Amino acid sequence: MSGNYIPPLRDMQFVLHELLDMEGVLARHCADKAIDRETAHQVLDGAGRFCAEVLAPLNSVGDQHGCEYNAGDVKTAPGFREAFNRYASDGWSGLVCDVEDGGQGLPHIMGTVVSEMLASSNSAWSLYPKLSEGAYRCIRANGTDWQKDTFLTPLATGEWTGTMCLTEPHCGTDLGLLRTRAVPNVDGSFAITGTKIFISSGEHDLAPNIIHLVLARLPDAPAGVRGISLFIVPKFLLDDAGKLAARNGVQCGSLERKMGIHGNATCVMNFEAATGYLIGEAGKGLAAMFVMMNGARLGTGTQALGLSETAYQRALRYSQERLQSRSPATPASSTGPDPILSLPDVRRMLLTQRALVEGGRAFAYWLALQIDIHQHSADAQTSRDAEGLLALLTPVAKAFLSDNGVDVTSLGMQVHGGAGFITETGAEQLLRDARILPIYEGTNGVQANDLVGRKVLADEGLQIRRLLTIVRETATECLARDGSAESKVDDMGRAIAELCDDVEAATQFILDSAQLDPCQPGTSSAAYLRLIGHLMFAHFWARAALVATTKAADSFYAGKLVTAQFYFASLLPESRSLLPRIRLESSAVMNPLAFAA
Amino acid sequence: MSGNYIPPLRDMQFVLHELLDMEGVLARHCADKAIDRETAHQVLDGAGRFCAEVLAPLNSVGDQHGCEYNAGDVKTAPGFREAFNRYASDGWSGLVCDVEDGGQGLPHIMGTVVSEMLASSNSAWSLYPKLSEGAYRCIRANGTDWQKDTFLTPLATGEWTGTMCLTEPHCGTDLGLLRTRAVPNVDGSFAITGTKIFISSGEHDLAPNIIHLVLARLPDAPAGVRGISLFIVPKFLLDDAGKLAARNGVQCGSLERKMGIHGNATCVMNFEAATGYLIGEAGKGLAAMFVMMNGARLGTGTQALGLSETAYQRALRYSQERLQSRSPATPASSTGPDPILSLPDVRRMLLTQRALVEGGRAFAYWLALQIDIHQHSADAQTSRDAEGLLALLTPVAKAFLSDNGVDVTSLGMQVHGGAGFITETGAEQLLRDARILPIYEGTNGVQANDLVGRKVLADEGLQIRRLLTIVRETATECLARDGSAESKVDDMGRAIAELCDDVEAATQFILDSAQLDPCQPGTSSAAYLRLIGHLMFAHFWARAALVATTKAADSFYAGKLVTAQFYFASLLPESRSLLPRIRLESSAVMNPLAFAA
Repeated sequence: MSGNYIPPLRDMQFVLHELLDMEGVLARHCADKAIDRETAHQVLDGAGRFCAEVLAPLNSVGDQHGCEYNAGDVKTAPGFREAFNRYASDGWSGLVCDVEDGGQGLPHIMGTVVSEMLASSNSAWSLYPKLSEGAYRCIRANGTDWQKDTFLTPLATGEWTGTMCLTEPHCGTDLGLLRTRAVPNVDGSFAITGTKIFISSGEHDLAPNIIHLVLARLPDAPAGVRGISLFIVPKFLLDDAGKLAARNGVQCGSLERKMGIHGNATCVMNFEAATGYLIGEAGKGLAAMFVMMNGARLGTGTQALGLSETAYQRALRYSQERLQSRSPATPASSTGPDPILSLPDVRRMLLTQRALVEGGRAFAYWLALQIDIHQHSADAQTSRDAEGLLALLTPVAKAFLSDNGVDVTSLGMQVHGGAGFITETGAEQLLRDARILPIYEGTNGVQANDLVGRKVLADEGLQIRRLLTIVRETATECLARDGSAESKVDDMGRAIAELCDDVEAATQFILDSAQLDPCQPGTSSAAYLRLIGHLMFAHFWARAALVATTKAADSFYAGKLVTAQFYFASLLPESRSLLPRIRLESSAVMNPLAFAA
Repeated sequence: MSGNYIPPLRDMQFVLHELLDMEGVLARHCADKAIDRETAHQVLDGAGRFCAEVLAPLNSVGDQHGCEYNAGDVKTAPGFREAFNRYASDGWSGLVCDVEDGGQGLPHIMGTVVSEMLASSNSAWSLYPKLSEGAYRCIRANGTDWQKDTFLTPLATGEWTGTMCLTEPHCGTDLGLLRTRAVPNVDGSFAITGTKIFISSGEHDLAPNIIHLVLARLPDAPAGVRGISLFIVPKFLLDDAGKLAARNGVQCGSLERKMGIHGNATCVMNFEAATGYLIGEAGKGLAAMFVMMNGARLGTGTQALGLSETAYQRALRYSQERLQSRSPATPASSTGPDPILSLPDVRRMLLTQRALVEGGRAFAYWLALQIDIHQHSADAQTSRDAEGLLALLTPVAKAFLSDNGVDVTSLGMQVHGGAGFITETGAEQLLRDARILPIYEGTNGVQANDLVGRKVLADEGLQIRRLLTIVRETATECLARDGSAESKVDDMGRAIAELCDDVEAATQFILDSAQLDPCQPGTSSAAYLRLIGHLMFAHFWARAALVATTKAADSFYAGKLVTAQFYFASLLPESRSLLPRIRLESSAVMNPLAFAA
């Protein structure tokens, strides 16, 4: 039962083509990444089949087997290695990597759609290729010619995999504290020594070599983040012909036992004078690493989307099959129980899931499209505009989608009743797998601080105002739509206009109060981030409704419209509770008496 | 690390004595249950030591070992049996049972405080005695003299344990569908045949006999709930001297693998012509069982409270010890990282936990006190008044506290960052153990339907109006308090007055709309239940503030006041988002097009 996954290709196409006009946007702004509908469909259809047929059946296998540790070696769950080999040989691994590196050269947005499917079908497994993609991207952006020649093709083709090694036992968020040391060798390489923890995919048996990207500190480096450099540390060193040679001084010391994503190896990695190659400039390791981090953060949001989709699919299916109680809409004359899908409170839960899943899909794909525009637009202003929106909204996507993902997977359990708590049903694994998402790649608190501090305060609200201009156009379009009374699109327009005013006022409050009180941004940040999340969801749900109202005779569009209306009536009102939380005086949390007793 | 638990005796005393005046109330209304402060303190101190020293160290042991199944027998985790023996021999098992049955005869409120501690220290273990208490209560209320003579003392003294056997594979919520059959034997007993699932504590090695209370259907019984009778089915039959004799035809068929509470045996129970004794009247099994259910529902809320307290304690401790990043309040001249407790967003999470834990404690203990008043008051009107509030608010306590419990344990993980996801830390077990609470003893959707349908609609809002009268007195008291500007008690009074108006209007909407639309109650119910939950929390937090403002020089009361202010400023505003959800048109969820595509 728990292996079933049906790729939501229809909704994916709706978002890609009808909401985002992917084909047109790419053709206009990123000619070398252009892709026609037919090709896009073939890619997604193939990826969907791989996910449904190969990965989904391994999802509970990975959860139950976990990974086995034996003297530094890690054996993944049965089937994981074969799935990875097939993933690589079928060319999925390099989907968004450059053609010259053996990749498929597809746009980032297509990679995001495929990432959603990977996470839907097997979230723990999906972290193996996901980390490789990050390492590829980082080396491509920062590497020397030798580094690029040596490492990019094996990473793109899935011959090898990659990792990100940041966290140490005493430091996660605050990387300025890290202690791993890099001492220069005579040949220009460095000897890396230290311990890294929580390293996803740090050791495994899927591929013969693993390329670790490791933050470490040079002997003469200043304290804090400016003393951090980034190094490439392969598990196996290479001989002059590029073949695997000596084992490097890096070893998995143990595996963490954890709540979920059991199928992924979360490793303690010990570096003992391991040979590392400086990548990018000394002291600029964090900046080089951030090339991976931004993609990883959107990737975390996408993972939440994937898990949420599966939770919604399963809950809907269960509610159609489970006969229990009587719907209040059922005539008294009917006999026997109804499917629980007919109960109002169950429908409320399912519509909540659906609104969060499909709203998140539109937001995530749109953001991925901004990456393509930023990276490939020939027009400098267009590229910068996309970059600005990306910087602003990446923390929102990471935190809002991952918090929603925990809620959606938890609702999925709830719809199942008692069966939801039982392992065999598969619903509870989704929540356990989703619960890491608000934590890793920077906790959601870190995302909120990033949004308020590095994005809103740093540019004095410039990008937020740009975003509001875009969203207000949607409000105007809704209000201008003829005959919208029945569809409630005009109500949506009014709600968005009011929301934009609220966001503007909240932003001004953040800007003004930060001048007077250094503790105010951190007090307001979590609620402010959720408010911006709703701004994006309201925007995309209204756009979906604008499309759907013109085609409401078709059941797909009719359901879309009902869900849009539900979002505005039932979920967006959360924003009313966020406004007082944004304006909460910092003294309410900073008062030292709060925890004095 | 994960074994630490410090019984929050100071806050328990604050609620019992300063908020609820337990001593005075019991002396006035339940003279035979009266207890003085000193005795109460000794009981709680002893229970706290047992929980902290014996149960807490076994909590992660139970999670990791689970229960072992072998051909019908179940072995509990190492230490569980010894802990149960000590629990029974120290007299904790019969704390609230009658003295004539070998119990301690203490009031229900004292049992609730001890239940909180049991759940805090070892939630899975606590289900073994908890189910016995339910069986005791049911037999005491409904049993024949022989049944009482035979079963009450062994249940009260912990010599035997009990269970509730309701759910079957095809029916949980909708018990009218159940199929287990009871065929009369010639000796007046019945032969029970059928399969029950999700039976907590159904089989184990803690005690030599297990008394199952089983819902089943007589051969000539009508369909639906009126055909259900209740039976006592002991694991071992008794000889004429009351000694254990033949094994009865009931056996554990298997154990469920589940998300949490691994230390408790969740059993499939197979009854094959097992000897059962009818308890209460034939066809009135549900009513007899409900004597257990109401206590079990408040017990589930109390379990959530207990898990939440532990999650809060651990998160607070971690935040004091973990050095990372710099507080915005720290002078630029200071060096080194600060404890994360100094960060505004971490403090926000901890204050959210604290406000939900302590608000829940006041609500749960007060409700338990209503049980004592209802059962023991000599004045019939006083007893009926307490019964009315109990009936109204038991579903609120079950659902509101259990949903909050999931949030509080999840926040506890979040404060821990990456460590929160790691099993060893112990934070994630609390969330896994808490996640069953919104599901069992009637899902929270069932509770919401019970509140709206059987409580508010059935008495046309009578009890809600009584409750509003009580809460409005608190508002009046807050507004009348002199010099309250700094403490913000006057703001609290205004907020409560407004909230009471909102509840009144929402209740009227429920009453009016139900006349016209049978689907409206189920559409509004979940949000309405949360609104009533906030009504209770606002009431008790204001009462706490009224006490604390008079003693704010003491750090305990100062922290209380800060937390009350935080509740009103940051958590109560959720009610603003609940009002539109209550008024959501039923067509928004019942529209058949929502899930048609």
